[in-house]
Amino acid sequence: MKAIVYGVGKMGVLISRYMVEKGVDIVGAIDMNPAIVGKDLGEVAGLGRDLNVIIRKDADEVLSEYKADIAIVAVYTDMERMYPIFKRCIKNNLNVITLSEEALYPWGVAPEFAARLDRLARDHGVTITASGLQDTLRVNLVTLLTGASHFIESIFGIQRNNLGGYGKEVLSYYHVGESEESVRKKLTGIKQRSGSFRMTLEALAADLGLTIMRVEERPEPTIAEMDIEVASLEGIVKKGFVTGMKKVINITTREKIILEGEQILKVYNEDELKIGDINEWFVHGIPEVHLKNDRVSSDAVTCAQLVNRIPDVIRSAPGYVTVDLLPKLKYRAFPLSHYLEA
Amino acid sequence: MKAIVYGVGKMGVLISRYMVEKGVDIVGAIDMNPAIVGKDLGEVAGLGRDLNVIIRKDADEVLSEYKADIAIVAVYTDMERMYPIFKRCIKNNLNVITLSEEALYPWGVAPEFAARLDRLARDHGVTITASGLQDTLRVNLVTLLTGASHFIESIFGIQRNNLGGYGKEVLSYYHVGESEESVRKKLTGIKQRSGSFRMTLEALAADLGLTIMRVEERPEPTIAEMDIEVASLEGIVKKGFVTGMKKVINITTREKIILEGEQILKVYNEDELKIGDINEWFVHGIPEVHLKNDRVSSDAVTCAQLVNRIPDVIRSAPGYVTVDLLPKLKYRAFPLSHYLEA
Repeated sequence: MKAIVYGVGKMGVLISRYMVEKGVDIVGAIDMNPAIVGKDLGEVAGLGRDLNVIIRKDADEVLSEYKADIAIVAVYTDMERMYPIFKRCIKNNLNVITLSEEALYPWGVAPEFAARLDRLARDHGVTITASGLQDTLRVNLVTLLTGASHFIESIFGIQRNNLGGYGKEVLSYYHVGESEESVRKKLTGIKQRSGSFRMTLEALAADLGLTIMRVEERPEPTIAEMDIEVASLEGIVKKGFVTGMKKVINITTREKIILEGEQILKVYNEDELKIGDINEWFVHGIPEVHLKNDRVSSDAVTCAQLVNRIPDVIRSAPGYVTVDLLPKLKYRAFPLSHYLEA
Repeated sequence: MKAIVYGVGKMGVLISRYMVEKGVDIVGAIDMNPAIVGKDLGEVAGLGRDLNVIIRKDADEVLSEYKADIAIVAVYTDMERMYPIFKRCIKNNLNVITLSEEALYPWGVAPEFAARLDRLARDHGVTITASGLQDTLRVNLVTLLTGASHFIESIFGIQRNNLGGYGKEVLSYYHVGESEESVRKKLTGIKQRSGSFRMTLEALAADLGLTIMRVEERPEPTIAEMDIEVASLEGIVKKGFVTGMKKVINITTREKIILEGEQILKVYNEDELKIGDINEWFVHGIPEVHLKNDRVSSDAVTCAQLVNRIPDVIRSAPGYVTVDLLPKLKYRAFPLSHYLEA
């Protein structure tokens, strides 16, 4: 199995390492960052050995030069900027798997891009899919969980990630340390990008055969319940001040099942640090069902899911195939090529 | 969609209610219990109305008399006693779905019965499957969860159920209130039946493509860490005495992945009562992954999963088809017949 890594950032590096360990032959690597262009992917990925794959910035040449089964694309989160990149891969007859958040389920946020890519992929006999954290732990784990429900009134999800490890720039983007009042003022009347949780819930609805009637998203500051020390601010977020942001989302369906949740990005207090990142779901109805993943290693599960998903994407029928339509994702105990046999 | 209910006990009653609410036409009901034979299933199931289905004990006649798509079988847990019942259903060209624990994955504990039923089902063009609590919440949720793992060393599961609601007879079967020493003495040299967790772990192994090398099961008494009041004993289990039993199971595979777990049945202390029944899984490796369901409504999820599974069984290719081989189980937002279309 041959792959091209398109985007050698933090995720691209981890994905490369995981692929090598699962016997994937990486034949090309693309990135624009001058700090790594010209270097060997093995060196950049910290493998302790060269892979004889030089990171290049001439995407079209790399994509056409090497015969590969699939391109692993980890560049931007939005479909608008990803569209030309996906198009380039597909036109070179490559299957595509990506971490792009909007690509997870683009039919709600970017239906035209999705339709064009679907057509293009069918024309070229390849598949494009977005996997990552949302694949197993959000979309498929939750629809599978609903298999234990007799009657569902609503599904509520909480996704919480720690901003604690990030630098000043990111923390300032999420208003960490500001007063609640000033943040609320800033948010007034501003149209925000949809968060990845919207795509998650839309994929859930599709998987359950529900028809979406209305999508509402609302950003809210999260407020410190106690003083929190924040290393990268060299200071403290005082009780009552803003620790980050959450997207509150509510989707109504024709079938009267409500899909809702909170996507929280904040600096953690001591209690939250103990539990770590969480992925928590409540299926309200008959019976009540509750599931929780705690201490989620977000980067590792993101990359592991993408790599485990590769055989399914290569084997899938052509087109834009979202993860709700692929087989149940599973651990790959054997080299990935094993799963293309049979 | 037409169904025959074979076994109108606690589970059969709940399944009947759920099926009626999902638009299934129940055409026959079988049970040997003289207290309910001759009564209408609607009355026995507490539906508040008759279903015009009289509970009868002449199984062969009911199975042949009514044209049904599927028989819902909830009678015994072991394959030995279930075999003639399954055979009877299949010979009448009925698909079969059952709660029988050994039937979940019979290839380890009862391979001959499994092979015979597989052949018979193929000959008659029908499918036999066991669903229930293990379907989503054990087997499929866990293999899906492993999709987030890059490398797995072992998978450890804990299943805990409360004996608190049961009568003296059941509590005495599980040695509740006895001294640890006397229980350990009783267990010495006694060959015990396999617990349902064995079938769960064997199905996990099959789903992950692993080859089982050795299965070890060991019964252990669970010990009270504090005094526990037990209503049906009209007394207290004192600290240090036996609260119930756990099956400790360990399966080694050729691929060096260990599957292990504890199936615990005990009277709950105050702390455990707050959390309720749990289904908890640790996937040890890279990364560490942890999942927990608490406050599990065991009866309701058992019956909901079985009912949700019916369309998959009817649509499946013929034979003995275990749940690891069926499509991802999902909530049925529409009447079950909807899922036979398309």
